[in-house]
Amino acid sequence: MARILGIDPGIRHTGYGVVDAEGALHRRVASGDIQPDGSADLPERLLHLHRELGELIARYEPDVCAFESVFYHKNPKSMMILGQAQAACILAAARAGVPTAFYAPREVKMAITGQGAAGKEQVRFMVERILAESFEGRKLDETDALAVAICHASRAVVLEVEA
Amino acid sequence: MARILGIDPGIRHTGYGVVDAEGALHRRVASGDIQPDGSADLPERLLHLHRELGELIARYEPDVCAFESVFYHKNPKSMMILGQAQAACILAAARAGVPTAFYAPREVKMAITGQGAAGKEQVRFMVERILAESFEGRKLDETDALAVAICHASRAVVLEVEA
Repeated sequence: MARILGIDPGIRHTGYGVVDAEGALHRRVASGDIQPDGSADLPERLLHLHRELGELIARYEPDVCAFESVFYHKNPKSMMILGQAQAACILAAARAGVPTAFYAPREVKMAITGQGAAGKEQVRFMVERILAESFEGRKLDETDALAVAICHASRAVVLEVEA
Repeated sequence: MARILGIDPGIRHTGYGVVDAEGALHRRVASGDIQPDGSADLPERLLHLHRELGELIARYEPDVCAFESVFYHKNPKSMMILGQAQAACILAAARAGVPTAFYAPREVKMAITGQGAAGKEQVRFMVERILAESFEGRKLDETDALAVAICHASRAVVLEVEA
């Protein structure tokens, strides 16, 4: 059994999802959305995000943190802000000594839906089927984070089969 | 007397400079360049940068951390990496409870040389004059970080005069 913490970082919303995986079976342990106070200044927001994620890691003790990593966005300033939010999350894992894995959005969509260009709603539909739970009314960041965790689990299974 | 830690963040080189300022007098206390191992993976490099800066803050106890903050770069991926390095540094200040200040490169150049479009060599020349020291053979990140610290000090003086 492997416990995976999936993370979809953002300065406004960071989705997280803890998934236990055993072979092709996946069980959701916890999931949600970290929302730093939008009126706080940048250092406070980064600290809030870093600490919340550090607490989740201490509470759920994941074997690995799997990140959705965007490598391209048209707007350079958005990329810088995304990089800042990513680093706050990555440092929470690194400080706790938890290994990290990174997946491009395309890889996550492919692993979940079999289609690299799938929409967010389609990803959510498949996450609901895989975890046998409804996420109606929950933020898309949360299902995206669960999708990253499931993506990591499926790839780990493939690696085991190949080995 | 105010002690300012100037920081010029980057994932390959992060310049730092500790300056004590009293009115128009500036004294360099320490300065250098943090270079995370280029062959290490991203989480390790961010952790290295974060920890080194945390140790400098613990050792020199600055009143404020002043950052050179680039807000625009043509290459979105460079912006993301810069954002990650910035966040590792900002979080070191935030975790230690040290206030932060941010200055655009143009503001720093203006405060040091009186010219917003000054070159790096011109900035170094003025930093050497202000601190009455030679920085020959040292990295430009180091003098850039000292320039940010001096920029913060000069602006603090202006604010006092205006108040």
